[in-house]
Amino acid sequence: MQINKKIFVLSLLVSSALVFTACDKNKGADAQTNNKTSELAATSQTQEQTSKEANREKVNNEEIINVDGFLSADDIAIAQQLRDEALKSSKGYSIVESLTTEVGPRMAGTAGDAAAVVWGEAKLKELGFDKVWKEPVTFKTWKRGIETAEVVAPFPQPLVITALGFSIGTAPEGLSAEIKAYDTLDDLKKAPENDAKGKIVFIKYRMKKARDGSGYGPAVAARGSGAVEAAKKGAVGILIRSIGTDSHRMAHTGMMRYSAEVQKIPAAALSAPDADLLENMLNRDKPVTVKMTLGAYDGPEYTSYNVIGEITGSEKPEEYVLIGGHLDSWDLGTGALDDGAGIAITAAAAELISRLPERPKRSIRVVMFANEEQGLVGARAYAEAHKDELHNIITAAESDFGAGPIWRIDSRVKPEALPVAKKIAELLKPLGIKYGNNRAGGGPDLIPLRQKGISVFSLRQDGTDYFDFHHTPDDTLDKINKEHLDQNTAAYVVFAYLAAQMEGDFGQKVE
Amino acid sequence: MQINKKIFVLSLLVSSALVFTACDKNKGADAQTNNKTSELAATSQTQEQTSKEANREKVNNEEIINVDGFLSADDIAIAQQLRDEALKSSKGYSIVESLTTEVGPRMAGTAGDAAAVVWGEAKLKELGFDKVWKEPVTFKTWKRGIETAEVVAPFPQPLVITALGFSIGTAPEGLSAEIKAYDTLDDLKKAPENDAKGKIVFIKYRMKKARDGSGYGPAVAARGSGAVEAAKKGAVGILIRSIGTDSHRMAHTGMMRYSAEVQKIPAAALSAPDADLLENMLNRDKPVTVKMTLGAYDGPEYTSYNVIGEITGSEKPEEYVLIGGHLDSWDLGTGALDDGAGIAITAAAAELISRLPERPKRSIRVVMFANEEQGLVGARAYAEAHKDELHNIITAAESDFGAGPIWRIDSRVKPEALPVAKKIAELLKPLGIKYGNNRAGGGPDLIPLRQKGISVFSLRQDGTDYFDFHHTPDDTLDKINKEHLDQNTAAYVVFAYLAAQMEGDFGQKVE
Repeated sequence: MQINKKIFVLSLLVSSALVFTACDKNKGADAQTNNKTSELAATSQTQEQTSKEANREKVNNEEIINVDGFLSADDIAIAQQLRDEALKSSKGYSIVESLTTEVGPRMAGTAGDAAAVVWGEAKLKELGFDKVWKEPVTFKTWKRGIETAEVVAPFPQPLVITALGFSIGTAPEGLSAEIKAYDTLDDLKKAPENDAKGKIVFIKYRMKKARDGSGYGPAVAARGSGAVEAAKKGAVGILIRSIGTDSHRMAHTGMMRYSAEVQKIPAAALSAPDADLLENMLNRDKPVTVKMTLGAYDGPEYTSYNVIGEITGSEKPEEYVLIGGHLDSWDLGTGALDDGAGIAITAAAAELISRLPERPKRSIRVVMFANEEQGLVGARAYAEAHKDELHNIITAAESDFGAGPIWRIDSRVKPEALPVAKKIAELLKPLGIKYGNNRAGGGPDLIPLRQKGISVFSLRQDGTDYFDFHHTPDDTLDKINKEHLDQNTAAYVVFAYLAAQMEGDFGQKVE
Repeated sequence: MQINKKIFVLSLLVSSALVFTACDKNKGADAQTNNKTSELAATSQTQEQTSKEANREKVNNEEIINVDGFLSADDIAIAQQLRDEALKSSKGYSIVESLTTEVGPRMAGTAGDAAAVVWGEAKLKELGFDKVWKEPVTFKTWKRGIETAEVVAPFPQPLVITALGFSIGTAPEGLSAEIKAYDTLDDLKKAPENDAKGKIVFIKYRMKKARDGSGYGPAVAARGSGAVEAAKKGAVGILIRSIGTDSHRMAHTGMMRYSAEVQKIPAAALSAPDADLLENMLNRDKPVTVKMTLGAYDGPEYTSYNVIGEITGSEKPEEYVLIGGHLDSWDLGTGALDDGAGIAITAAAAELISRLPERPKRSIRVVMFANEEQGLVGARAYAEAHKDELHNIITAAESDFGAGPIWRIDSRVKPEALPVAKKIAELLKPLGIKYGNNRAGGGPDLIPLRQKGISVFSLRQDGTDYFDFHHTPDDTLDKINKEHLDQNTAAYVVFAYLAAQMEGDFGQKVE
């Protein structure tokens, strides 16, 4: 610890000087060009489109990737050692076990959120990070309250529902109305005026299962804007089939939004078996009346924190690789998959790097973002708080898609740096990971950074089962496979270490 | 319907005479021997043990089974037709869809129970049964009320529990106490006096998965008698890991019993992930305090009904093959697997037989037993109400193990009739069913009949996944595979038809 402290003090001094220089340089760049936000992305996409097939072919045929001037043989050898070490570490599992056991549910603005912040700081210190701190994130809160529903007629029986995030509540005695069903949100949008007048809208759309989670996009719009669209047609409430791919008696929560111009109506999700049941009742061509009672309400403003740990670089400590996940979860489960796993994988990867005899050249920063679930609030706060030094982020990757094994790595880097991305992919091959493309998204909490042109990577996890558990009480530790978690850690450690070591950069288009 | 009515009137006349003769004969037999109850079983077992391997070998080698004098070639040809017809019928699925949709949960003594009785009578009439009636079943009721739990310290978070059937409630403000864990019920029994003084006992035992459900027996004792054993050690409450094989956030309910000599304490089950969580907390070697609140209480006496439908036999209408399931369910799910499927399979099989141009020689009786879940109450009532005419039951089989495909058929018949059992098994071979042994249990609601020496068959279903859903909110229609249900119906129709047609009997050891 003595040695680390010395490096740390030194690094702070070096850091201040470099940040100053870098900021000045950046200001100049800003003055010269407008609208640079997506320039890196645009460049990368063009490059990608023209050489897509050629690239793929080369990678498949064991292309010799030339990273001269970027990475040394030592860098690569150490990355391989780290990777192999990660596969037997189990550190990630122990972190997510700790978070789910000692904190559990940690919805933004709850006591669990506060406990998670305390946990996060303590855990990063315990893991030996050189520097641990937190940064405030302030937001409006939402409280769930009770949530019950039942079919009143023609076949009385209870239904399992959950309120959607930021839904208003019903009157205390509940809301009873006839059901008006639509196959999709689009069908609702296309319906005639007053088509759902005085009714509770029911959207039947079934999300499709896919490894890459591509079923989520087409499904989730019903959750986000279903209430607004239903209210436009005169509805008094909305029930959607859960945005999920399971067939269990648990409803999936998640955010919804109101519009200032449209009447707010209560919004909830039915579990898949309950949505089936409602469909079967409706198939009998009799009016079906449902009563739903939601105790949800908007709470006071609250300040939580992004919790940050740093392994401080030895040569360019002010520059850093940003990895992380989000610390908040929904309230129903213990947030093991969403996103305890992401926190665990990235913290475990950084911890492995900290065990090397020497610190890497650049810093590794693990960011546990606050309040991702209710609108990327921590992510936006981070981007804002660090807006004058975003150029220090060499690249970034968030883990926020559960705990399945990584099967593909995508990059978003300048063309000249593509060999480094390919080299990272090559080192991940023994983990069953292939290179994808240069259009990486990077993860939800990186959107504000990516929009500013920061280079990102996507270490894409197998999400086949992710939406079975997503935002339900079933998001618990037993859904995590230790070996898969180690595989994730192994991939992150290679990525983070090589990005921290490389000469040059992945593109610096920060505005 | 005109023709059926005539047969029915005729059959009643014939029936009265035969019952009278049979009863007289039986009384004579009773006078001659004592303790005949399990004679059939004992005989069968001896026979089975001595020739077990020989029999198995023969069946495997396509033994020519001689059923001369029992069954005609026509009987067998019709049974085959019925079997093949059943495979494309989908009738079973439509019945269980109807029950779960139009009634849903139907715990004994609830409004759902009453609705199920109405449904049962209407459904059997709609299916064209010759005779439909109900027989009263009176019992004590139990009400669930609220059920919540949470870890109070050291890591506050909610737990998912469900009260065990007939548990008492806690005080309205809940019961808070430290957890005292035991690996098994036996460990609790062996513990020193006052070992759990003032504590909430937690039994960690994990039920094992098996096709034949053999994991249930070793596990379920903790549910039945855990509260009594815990109270003997001074405990103030008990939580068991759910008797189930899933890993979902749903607790499994089911019956427990108190003893008149031992203090009653509240009893509940934790979902598997919550039991894991509690174990992980306890592994930290700090006292763990849990608060549980149960609103359960004993309700008033209630009268429900066994609902019975009969396809009336053409030659020996007073004699009958009894098939069926239980009409009640637990309150948490819609009772699709437990035991809507059994009701559906057996009613569908009988309905298929009713579509033949001629009625079978004997009657087929489908019994939808009341209140199986809370102590075989309907089954005992049936045995009592029909105690003077039990010899009319040629044989019986209950379907009450979900909706998995049948993989084995066991018989419990006199040795001379074993070829008929083997012939039935032979006709079921194309369905993937093999003959097992001559020690059939017959199903829970047949215990009172089997104990009186009635011949029974077990058409054993694949129960690998059954205990994933058993007694949880997740016991819903989506867990049922239509093809599996048809396979079940096909097996029951062969069994019921041939038993109704056979000359002679399977053994008449009714006391």
